[in-house]
Amino acid sequence: MALNLDTQGQKIGPIIREYTWRDPILYALGVGAGFSELQYCYEKNLKVIPSFPMAAIMDFFWQVGTTANVNPAGVLHGEQDLVFHNPIPIQGTLITEGHITNIYDKGKDKGALVVAESDTSHSNGDLLVTSIITIFARLDGGFGGENIPPKKIIFPDLPPDMVVKDTPSENQPLLYRLTGDLFPLHVDPEFAKLAGFAEPIMHGLCTYGFACRALVQNLVPAEPERVRRIDCRFSKPLYPGVSIETLIWKTSPGKAVWKTVNTETGEVVITNGVFKYEEKKYSHLT
Amino acid sequence: MALNLDTQGQKIGPIIREYTWRDPILYALGVGAGFSELQYCYEKNLKVIPSFPMAAIMDFFWQVGTTANVNPAGVLHGEQDLVFHNPIPIQGTLITEGHITNIYDKGKDKGALVVAESDTSHSNGDLLVTSIITIFARLDGGFGGENIPPKKIIFPDLPPDMVVKDTPSENQPLLYRLTGDLFPLHVDPEFAKLAGFAEPIMHGLCTYGFACRALVQNLVPAEPERVRRIDCRFSKPLYPGVSIETLIWKTSPGKAVWKTVNTETGEVVITNGVFKYEEKKYSHLT
Repeated sequence: MALNLDTQGQKIGPIIREYTWRDPILYALGVGAGFSELQYCYEKNLKVIPSFPMAAIMDFFWQVGTTANVNPAGVLHGEQDLVFHNPIPIQGTLITEGHITNIYDKGKDKGALVVAESDTSHSNGDLLVTSIITIFARLDGGFGGENIPPKKIIFPDLPPDMVVKDTPSENQPLLYRLTGDLFPLHVDPEFAKLAGFAEPIMHGLCTYGFACRALVQNLVPAEPERVRRIDCRFSKPLYPGVSIETLIWKTSPGKAVWKTVNTETGEVVITNGVFKYEEKKYSHLT
Repeated sequence: MALNLDTQGQKIGPIIREYTWRDPILYALGVGAGFSELQYCYEKNLKVIPSFPMAAIMDFFWQVGTTANVNPAGVLHGEQDLVFHNPIPIQGTLITEGHITNIYDKGKDKGALVVAESDTSHSNGDLLVTSIITIFARLDGGFGGENIPPKKIIFPDLPPDMVVKDTPSENQPLLYRLTGDLFPLHVDPEFAKLAGFAEPIMHGLCTYGFACRALVQNLVPAEPERVRRIDCRFSKPLYPGVSIETLIWKTSPGKAVWKTVNTETGEVVITNGVFKYEEKKYSHLT
């Protein structure tokens, strides 16, 4: 049951996922969108939340985990970086391929990290998004490998420019999982207990979808096609039904840093957030 | 734009709808199920809410409306009777066929009623459910036809035996519609205004699904396969996010009558409810 270190560099994919316009809508509802953001929820003039391709990239995630022989009982999503190249069409086929880039060792009781990079293209020929996934393999540490180089986002020592409150529903993971990630940790009370949780927890990527909506709504309102990059680290689990706040600091033109906080405990559930976007171009009539 | 009265007796279908286990789960979430009724929301030991085939029978509903030339701006679901013959499998193909049985006239400003009966079978060969749909065609009355014979359920002059409270979410119709009924009245604010509503309203069948869950949970707990019949009339529109109560009176072995009330206004939104079920058989060890 040890990690297979020889899989570093190994190609994964292509992984094919067809989708219709119903899928971005289901995704939008899965990450808490509703009538107040009808552009994501109604096929008339539909726009796609940029993080939607993660629903397909998770197929790649699981194939990375299986290939590297990660103990599934210890799998958590560690970090996620998405770089956007083109707007996400409302339907078509996504083709994802990539490779395992590194396997790091945090220590015997601390776990391992499996890092994999992939490109997702659309059947229209466009490259849509480059993803760097970090799988946190909680039960696979201590094989004597190198630790990951430290990476830390410095948050300004100022109050955030924007604070966006939201509350995922108590049943949010049941809906979110229908977008693609069927891992039982998010649905099965017995499995959750075996993994050390009181009950099924939110998908990190579901909370991330809430944050992504908050970032788009506040920095590129109703123009998700202007998003260029979303990067973050999943730092704490979150139970469904708990209120969250996404804190956003604009640091330079087209760039913000962000984190998402559990408002009940004050714990940071997503940290090291980076959000890059195309600044609005003003039209000149002269 | 008048009703086509010659379509009485006309065969409709077969209408074919394939489904996977994801569809009954999406339906369950669409009618408010969650972790407290995990048997409807998790593919492990999945059970199907008996009203699930309505998601497919609505294709038949719209074909009836088109065939009879109902003015779509005035379409409401009037009544719905379902008689169950066999438990609903978790996946397969549903085949629905039937015919328009009657077209009634309530008067010029009162609308018309188009009644259609259908049988839905499963690809395993079982007859699952017989449906009688009544379309309330609000804008098509006054053609000089006969009115429908009166039908009224007598509710006992006693407090209900059970009262089940629930609150559809403010975004409930956005999720429910992904199960099949894409009519814009439930999503499009402009369309809703043209139809005379302040905002998009709940699908009558979505509220009905909440009632069906309440009936199963209280009369045949976790054994939806014991449901034999659900009949009702949709009497008032309901806006999403408004609390409801389903009132249930047990009237004889295997039979209850029910109605669903808007708890904010006291209005009865579903009335004339009948629920028939197989009484629990006790096992005899001697």
